[in-house]
Amino acid sequence: MTLSANDPALKSWIPVPPNCDFPIQNLPYGVFRRRRGDAAIGVAIGEMVFDLSVAHRAGLFAGTAIAGENVFARDALNDFMAKGRSVWAEVRNRISALLREDHGELRDNGELRAQALLPQAEAEMMLPARIGNYTDFYSSKEHATNVGAMFRDPENALLPNWVHIPVGYHGRASSIIVSGVDIHRPKGQTKPDDAAAPVFGPSRLLDFELEVGFFTGPGNDLGTCISTAQAAEHIFGMVLVNDWSARDIQKWEYVPLGPFLGKSFATSISPWVVTLDALEPFRTSGPSQDPPVLPYLQFDGEWAYDLNLEVLLATETMPEPVRLTRTNFRHMYWNILQQLAHQTINGTNVQPGDLYASGTVSGAAEDSRGSMLELSWKGTKPIKLPNGQERKFLQDGDSVIMRGYCQGEGYRVGFGEVRARILQAID
Amino acid sequence: MTLSANDPALKSWIPVPPNCDFPIQNLPYGVFRRRRGDAAIGVAIGEMVFDLSVAHRAGLFAGTAIAGENVFARDALNDFMAKGRSVWAEVRNRISALLREDHGELRDNGELRAQALLPQAEAEMMLPARIGNYTDFYSSKEHATNVGAMFRDPENALLPNWVHIPVGYHGRASSIIVSGVDIHRPKGQTKPDDAAAPVFGPSRLLDFELEVGFFTGPGNDLGTCISTAQAAEHIFGMVLVNDWSARDIQKWEYVPLGPFLGKSFATSISPWVVTLDALEPFRTSGPSQDPPVLPYLQFDGEWAYDLNLEVLLATETMPEPVRLTRTNFRHMYWNILQQLAHQTINGTNVQPGDLYASGTVSGAAEDSRGSMLELSWKGTKPIKLPNGQERKFLQDGDSVIMRGYCQGEGYRVGFGEVRARILQAID
Repeated sequence: MTLSANDPALKSWIPVPPNCDFPIQNLPYGVFRRRRGDAAIGVAIGEMVFDLSVAHRAGLFAGTAIAGENVFARDALNDFMAKGRSVWAEVRNRISALLREDHGELRDNGELRAQALLPQAEAEMMLPARIGNYTDFYSSKEHATNVGAMFRDPENALLPNWVHIPVGYHGRASSIIVSGVDIHRPKGQTKPDDAAAPVFGPSRLLDFELEVGFFTGPGNDLGTCISTAQAAEHIFGMVLVNDWSARDIQKWEYVPLGPFLGKSFATSISPWVVTLDALEPFRTSGPSQDPPVLPYLQFDGEWAYDLNLEVLLATETMPEPVRLTRTNFRHMYWNILQQLAHQTINGTNVQPGDLYASGTVSGAAEDSRGSMLELSWKGTKPIKLPNGQERKFLQDGDSVIMRGYCQGEGYRVGFGEVRARILQAID
Repeated sequence: MTLSANDPALKSWIPVPPNCDFPIQNLPYGVFRRRRGDAAIGVAIGEMVFDLSVAHRAGLFAGTAIAGENVFARDALNDFMAKGRSVWAEVRNRISALLREDHGELRDNGELRAQALLPQAEAEMMLPARIGNYTDFYSSKEHATNVGAMFRDPENALLPNWVHIPVGYHGRASSIIVSGVDIHRPKGQTKPDDAAAPVFGPSRLLDFELEVGFFTGPGNDLGTCISTAQAAEHIFGMVLVNDWSARDIQKWEYVPLGPFLGKSFATSISPWVVTLDALEPFRTSGPSQDPPVLPYLQFDGEWAYDLNLEVLLATETMPEPVRLTRTNFRHMYWNILQQLAHQTINGTNVQPGDLYASGTVSGAAEDSRGSMLELSWKGTKPIKLPNGQERKFLQDGDSVIMRGYCQGEGYRVGFGEVRARILQAID
């Protein structure tokens, strides 16, 4: 009997350290570049990258639906994302088979193995896709309630539409960057409460937002919808997202047309796209939705994900990262099926490689909130760091690291990390 | 002496009817397809398209900066847009020279002429660019004031940030369509004022918004800014934009993150991109800005455009279009230099082929307003049509046509039109 690609008992002939994010049950896709090499698509396995473009050239995908086209000799996953779930599953099963400990086809071919495998430390990770459209939702009830309490009315923190609509807005696609790319503190207009007119300068309230985003695969035609029942067929996989936010810029600009320059200067994502297939064992029930949602937002099954998330901070004088928050993606009120069904209910067309982020993931506990804004409660409760420093918001030289993983029986399906450092504003 | 490409005295050997939008002083770029042919880039001249991909293949751009690369044998203008202003000017001068009445190189080559010229009626126009990022501004003071008076507080119609910020938001890039593509009435959530919960169905308050958008050429690196002094070097040209809006969907969804599904179902643009070079003679002074704007929004020179705009409506029982509104782009409070400087002041990177729309162009007079919302004052003053019908908002079967032109001495630099018909919602 052949074990399924998700079976906890599966092992690879490639070493996978304990608690590694990338066991054979994961096989996330990413785009990487070797030193002085072209970009290509690979999967992470243990501490290695398996170069799928080399595997394809060597004929290892003969007999599969992608045999005729090396969709892995690309600098973006878009073409593979466009193939759809049955092709993704077939390719996943093939990669899983090639890497299993009882399978010698690649393991015993020393020359091919040397070409197809390289240490992750030698791979420069790139953006996994050309992102044509980027939407940022606002799907954590705890986050929306916290923000509403701070900026509007604590007695009516949640706006009336929030429980009916997976609220979202279109974000900036061009400034989405991969983990490891540092960002400059943005400049812009802000208006101090006691000032008559706005002032210009570097943001003083720079923040992160812990989010999880999904990439779409096959799109829909303009004018048609994707139902909640169809949505999973259109979702390729997920990444961690840091939706950097300049709170002071955002506050002055956002009424009435929403966040703009307070968000658009950068959005960081993790490089490895964890597939829905790999996440399948970790689906679980989400919060009950009351009042009942409209029929187009109803769905069958359990579509929250038991995904542990954490955010860490390192500073110039505290190079060892310290955890700021820990939460779980399962608490999100609106799930990915509902988000995609809502996005398209008006006939909007989605395309392969679009990114749809969840909105800040905040839990109910004070130490499970997904932004500095909430953790320091608008700066009124500074966060004390172990070295005696305090933080209300981020300072130049700070690095923010987000990590996430699903815990299986004896293995983890992990996301790796998304990390970036704040550089001073350009003069 | 050689006349400049903008000289009013220039004439082409190709016939240009009186009041034609496309005299030799214009030369707008578009992407078109012949019957059973590949897409290519051409310019409109009179009632013809001059196929630049054919001209390039025939060596007519030898000696120019683009001699080595047929950037016109493409299905989008992005590669040409990326070249920058000096290349655009050189190519414009060359095309102008080829089409002048005293120039025989193309005129007298019957075979090449037959290949390179085709009637516009035989060309299927396509989207002029692959649009990676789309921003919609809100730059008409009259429009912002009208909307604020209707939906918020007539006494404080303009929000405090409006005179300091060229307010804008990121729109949906995937659903931007070219003139002639009909659209389905969008469905979505709306909440009648007297209802306890939202309802679902086709929008009942479908509207147009008359806008003008610019395409960017060369981009900037993430983290850097484009100043008002540099902005014109990054702007390729302009098109007409119909920012379709479902007012009932928008009203229920837009607080606090801005317009989303109320706008994202479709945005129509005109197919011919009129270059900044062709529009140069029509630059004029805009409204004075009081209070003074922050230094990064200050600019030298006159950067409003004397561009006449009108919107016409045809219905199923009134096939002959009737004008609904007439206005001028010169009244816009924020100009294109300010918009681009604002978009990038936080370090956002723009890319060739991005589209930046102006926001609804409304004048001071009641019959110069750029949306049904304003023309019918939220439906309280129905518009009477010549055939006895009335309109508060758009009905199925209605066609909206927008046109625009700059009036020169004896010639027009026109935009052609953007047109689309409303089809019923898909069941």
